[in-house]
Amino acid sequence: MTEKVATNWEQRFSSAARGMRFSAIRRMSALIEKPGIISFAPGQPSPDTFPVDRFRAILEDILAREGAASFQYILTRGLAPLLSAVRDYAAAKGMAAAAEEVLITEGSQQGLDLVARVLIDPGDVVLVERPSYIGATSAFRAAQARMVGVRLGPDGLDLDHLRDRHGAETAAGRRVKFLYVTPSFQNPSGISHSPASRRALLEAARELDLLVVEDDPYGDLYFEAEPLPTLRSMARETEVVYLSSFSKILAPGLRTAFVLGPEELLAKIEIAKQSANLCGSSLDQRIILACLRGGLIEEQKARIRPYYRAKRDVMLEALAKEMPSGVSWTRPRGGLFVWLTLPEGLDAAALLEAAVAEGVAYVTGAPFYVDGGGENTMRLTFAKEDAPTIEEGVRRLGRVVRGRIG
Amino acid sequence: MTEKVATNWEQRFSSAARGMRFSAIRRMSALIEKPGIISFAPGQPSPDTFPVDRFRAILEDILAREGAASFQYILTRGLAPLLSAVRDYAAAKGMAAAAEEVLITEGSQQGLDLVARVLIDPGDVVLVERPSYIGATSAFRAAQARMVGVRLGPDGLDLDHLRDRHGAETAAGRRVKFLYVTPSFQNPSGISHSPASRRALLEAARELDLLVVEDDPYGDLYFEAEPLPTLRSMARETEVVYLSSFSKILAPGLRTAFVLGPEELLAKIEIAKQSANLCGSSLDQRIILACLRGGLIEEQKARIRPYYRAKRDVMLEALAKEMPSGVSWTRPRGGLFVWLTLPEGLDAAALLEAAVAEGVAYVTGAPFYVDGGGENTMRLTFAKEDAPTIEEGVRRLGRVVRGRIG
Repeated sequence: MTEKVATNWEQRFSSAARGMRFSAIRRMSALIEKPGIISFAPGQPSPDTFPVDRFRAILEDILAREGAASFQYILTRGLAPLLSAVRDYAAAKGMAAAAEEVLITEGSQQGLDLVARVLIDPGDVVLVERPSYIGATSAFRAAQARMVGVRLGPDGLDLDHLRDRHGAETAAGRRVKFLYVTPSFQNPSGISHSPASRRALLEAARELDLLVVEDDPYGDLYFEAEPLPTLRSMARETEVVYLSSFSKILAPGLRTAFVLGPEELLAKIEIAKQSANLCGSSLDQRIILACLRGGLIEEQKARIRPYYRAKRDVMLEALAKEMPSGVSWTRPRGGLFVWLTLPEGLDAAALLEAAVAEGVAYVTGAPFYVDGGGENTMRLTFAKEDAPTIEEGVRRLGRVVRGRIG
Repeated sequence: MTEKVATNWEQRFSSAARGMRFSAIRRMSALIEKPGIISFAPGQPSPDTFPVDRFRAILEDILAREGAASFQYILTRGLAPLLSAVRDYAAAKGMAAAAEEVLITEGSQQGLDLVARVLIDPGDVVLVERPSYIGATSAFRAAQARMVGVRLGPDGLDLDHLRDRHGAETAAGRRVKFLYVTPSFQNPSGISHSPASRRALLEAARELDLLVVEDDPYGDLYFEAEPLPTLRSMARETEVVYLSSFSKILAPGLRTAFVLGPEELLAKIEIAKQSANLCGSSLDQRIILACLRGGLIEEQKARIRPYYRAKRDVMLEALAKEMPSGVSWTRPRGGLFVWLTLPEGLDAAALLEAAVAEGVAYVTGAPFYVDGGGENTMRLTFAKEDAPTIEEGVRRLGRVVRGRIG
């Protein structure tokens, strides 16, 4: 090994890189990833839901049928038969799309990143929910967007606030490039926009000539009889860019998601993707294709919706039992997350050390607010732990919270 | 489906997106991808070299041992045991690296993109070879770099030209962020920098305080007794960022490559990667890990080096036999590509239609020059076709060229 020479890297970095910081969640994980701790922290589906035996059979079949072709480069836009299967899948949800209106990405995260890269110049405005998904806001930050938060109520976005914030940005001479929303079972809050709120949101967006970027990773994890309608299915095709993935229904390690959007936008995204990573994983895309063709998606939905619903019920019942008055939380009708709000003045970050000492972990809420606030909030997932462990974890958390309130 | 509304997308795009164009190679492929054509065009390894049966056994073993864990999210930086195996692999090539100095990317293309994103502000200068790899230049273009070409001779970079171009850019007040080179068996030219030329390049870079980005996808495909030393193995650890991949030795559909670089730079790249795609394919990384652990890389090298060498020999012999005087070409000592130069005044793009009519295809050379020139050059790969087909293809190409010269 060779001698180390001091280099002033800060000087060499791009201005985007100088603004990059490790995510707050990542910094937290050093604290909370301890053996024996009950964790409500991770943003991951439960591996119990992954159909491993089916994947095994699918892989055998792929290798037997396709051999070496399974290991060659694939097209940037995605495997042609997968694109076609995704169009059928989207059409069944009321989102018919032409061939030019669909593209596969390596995780929805890549879709968010590419959307940001082709739309945002430094200083351009992106409107986001308060709170909003931290993976999205980090992608927008990497593109040096100015992010402006819009209040999220129990049934959807505060549209007066949306109009106010949009008006103020526009009046200041800034370009508002899009509104980013996760209307169904949002990460982090578990909140869903009601159908009426969706209609009103689309009307407001039309009136403001505002492009909507709809992120829908959890839409299939609905706990009631019917799924919520997507914004894309309620809008004109140029009004909404729709992103979803198979990470929560099948498995996130198979990095396969998709974007539906206007042809002109996807043409640019395809070029951006070509220089970003050339193409996705051939094997991952072939596995997802086989799952779509073989009906495994529907089987999985039928299997995992009750699985997560039961866990949500356990968490909500435990919270009702263990939390003192003054503490409130969302009652998500799908997805993986409950959002808990402590009495004003209590700080979830300050509480975390005590919680970890008590043997329970969560993610603090403030990092999900792009423009401050939320210090008294936290995200709890019911995905990871089993029912008795969720009960015990909430019991521990209740003790910690009562210790601060009492 | 809904009514189509006209939107002025050009106005909405970022300035980076407005500068994005489909690659020249991609535009060519519409012309050249015809059934029955002999193709020297693709930039892909031959699927004949993919160890499919070994991959099958490895996959069975992964699923049996690791089950659901194989399908969960993995760390942004890469699977921990893979990072460790890659460090051993690099150390065996004289490139010892600390844990903080290595990161897995989804293809070297992603490494190039991330390096560009964390180092380049719009208008910053990147020095590249003339010709240079088009995937890299497209990533640098997406970051809005100003690319400046440096002449590439038969044994390496023209260092006087390097100093001139660097001096002129610096004198004009621009920041030169790095020099990008593919020193071994370059795509597109097949040219390698000699060991002496490498030493001189590193000296010049040191003198200019110029970071070197070394792209080495073909280094293991050497046709002579010994591989060429990498720049990284000859330099201080802060002087060279090294990228390589397993695409050519194992299979490109398994999107797994790596970057070795200074800790400070990789820390930023890791953050950029997190917002770019969160993490790579769990299955792909596990397969590559098993290949590294099981010695399959060395087996593959021993198998495919003679495979490609024999094909190169066939192409070089056929060119010697079929090409009229005034035509010259490189004699690559590794890799997948031969670079052919027509007499001054002949245009490879203008010739392509006649070649396709004759039943043979290639990639025109001009798009590999960032600042013009190279109209009379073309890239020929010997990777795709078998020996008799290479001979027949060169015969056809010879007829087309002679038709223009005679």
